[in-house]
Amino acid sequence: MFSEIISIGDELLIGQVINSNASWIAQQMNSIGISVSRINVVADNHDEIISALSESSNRVKIVIITGGLGPTKDDITKPTICEYFNSKLVFNEDAYQDIVSLFSIRSSKVTEINKNQAMLPDNCIALPNKEGTARGMWFEKNGVIYVFMPGVPFEMKTMVSQTILPELIKKFTLPAIVHKTVLTQGIGESYLSEIIASWENELPSHIKLAYLPSPGIVRLRLTAKGEDKNILQKEVDLLVKKLEQIIPQYIYGMDEELLESIIGKLLREKKQTIATAESCTGGYIAHLITSIPGSSDYFTGSIVSYDNRIKIDELGVDRSSIEKHGAVSKEIVTQMAENI
Amino acid sequence: MFSEIISIGDELLIGQVINSNASWIAQQMNSIGISVSRINVVADNHDEIISALSESSNRVKIVIITGGLGPTKDDITKPTICEYFNSKLVFNEDAYQDIVSLFSIRSSKVTEINKNQAMLPDNCIALPNKEGTARGMWFEKNGVIYVFMPGVPFEMKTMVSQTILPELIKKFTLPAIVHKTVLTQGIGESYLSEIIASWENELPSHIKLAYLPSPGIVRLRLTAKGEDKNILQKEVDLLVKKLEQIIPQYIYGMDEELLESIIGKLLREKKQTIATAESCTGGYIAHLITSIPGSSDYFTGSIVSYDNRIKIDELGVDRSSIEKHGAVSKEIVTQMAENI
Repeated sequence: MFSEIISIGDELLIGQVINSNASWIAQQMNSIGISVSRINVVADNHDEIISALSESSNRVKIVIITGGLGPTKDDITKPTICEYFNSKLVFNEDAYQDIVSLFSIRSSKVTEINKNQAMLPDNCIALPNKEGTARGMWFEKNGVIYVFMPGVPFEMKTMVSQTILPELIKKFTLPAIVHKTVLTQGIGESYLSEIIASWENELPSHIKLAYLPSPGIVRLRLTAKGEDKNILQKEVDLLVKKLEQIIPQYIYGMDEELLESIIGKLLREKKQTIATAESCTGGYIAHLITSIPGSSDYFTGSIVSYDNRIKIDELGVDRSSIEKHGAVSKEIVTQMAENI
Repeated sequence: MFSEIISIGDELLIGQVINSNASWIAQQMNSIGISVSRINVVADNHDEIISALSESSNRVKIVIITGGLGPTKDDITKPTICEYFNSKLVFNEDAYQDIVSLFSIRSSKVTEINKNQAMLPDNCIALPNKEGTARGMWFEKNGVIYVFMPGVPFEMKTMVSQTILPELIKKFTLPAIVHKTVLTQGIGESYLSEIIASWENELPSHIKLAYLPSPGIVRLRLTAKGEDKNILQKEVDLLVKKLEQIIPQYIYGMDEELLESIIGKLLREKKQTIATAESCTGGYIAHLITSIPGSSDYFTGSIVSYDNRIKIDELGVDRSSIEKHGAVSKEIVTQMAENI
């Protein structure tokens, strides 16, 4: 089953806002076995919205749309939707009562502009929005499902998790999908691909591999698609086990794990603490380590020595070594970790 | 002048990677007066790429494409491009020499897979990539410009800034656009908008204002569009001068200036140095300060004291004060700056 996402908003097209909504929705759709085959970003513009809707509906059976449902005047999505679906806007009492109670929680008055939010197309299913004033809208037309949501991230996320995913699961017989990401460090993409070539070539056709490189790190993502989630999970686990035998020295974790959180886990297991002595990294290593909740259990502190005098006085670095290397050596870091 | 962006990559469609590349490119295009009317995200898939290219070229005259140019086999963009542009892949000696010198800097060998990166379509202009092995490719077909770039952000950004924007400016008569961003701190968006309401209401219709809030900071971006850059510049300068009279205490800089670089400039002017003593910020302040080139002139170092023992021994913090506040006080930071 395939779907497309349409993100509506001028702010996305001038680069003012990064489209993290679409990524999050894509993750959620994939997690229930619905692939996202396209993400389309269009302007708050009647013609653009109409053509995006019609193009997507020619390609897929599920179209998820976010944005353009706010109360201010730059949002023209709702009238455009009415035209596309031959709808009339009618006053929805339930939606209005939700808006009233939302404003009473916030101790503010419902303005005329907010009242307009309760005007909804007469041929849609209005989706609840406990977090905001704009209801979601679910349409079905010529066998295609269209779901419209506000672009405010937490409103959209609640709507997806609590209403849209459960409805889609009820509606379709979806394939099973298993993702697994193997995290490697200390090896470049091209060299890595040579080492694991024979393993990669033996992957069955229903299991895909993707290389996702970032500085110092290459993530290897396996995606298995089939009918039985348990069988897929077993296949993927076996493949990962084999990979661990080929490149044990490069793998540092799985899925969304962070290098700094794995360091923390290891230190905690071994009941050890760590300190850093940094020079040109200027506190960044300490920052990464302390970005993990609970890091005070194993991180004692750091000396960032930018001035040579500090390198000499506080860290006992030899002057000649500074002149030679211009930085703090590995030995010093180890020594520092012992002393602090 | 309108353009579209096509982002190629399965990782974008499963939500593993957020499409920040497209936002950045959209900003750059807008800055030279080219609007982005659509962003399309498609899979690493032959048919999807072909149809995205053909659809975009029916709508606009400039199509910017990123992704799918890595050395590993999940990237099928290049063969697909060849089909679309009726090209043959030929060995490009210049590109190969760049790859060789890139690898010699990294002290590693050029593999067969990297050598393939020097195979380029015979009818494109190959764009330099000093940061990586994948060259950019510039095609023109039926009056439409297509520019392909690797998806690695820093490679792509250098290519856009150094090659693509200058070429587009040469090629088209673009409207004059002047941007100016006023940086404010210490005041919230809604309160700020109230204070500057009368200034904002008097803006002429060809000058737009956008509020760009982030934690602790609100950037106010003015965008003036017209025919004569000098006139626009004068108008904007005058508006900024007026704004500086209304909210002098909240403005800390202009455009892309960073708070940390302004601190550095002030320290240098006053011939003073700074050190930090950090606790829960865990080295992040030191990291920000040292992220500015030349910061060693005024930044001496930092003590990140996570363990209370270090707070007491190294920073002379009173034990009762730690028990009370759990953090290092302002006084200590000042004291530290004097002592170090």
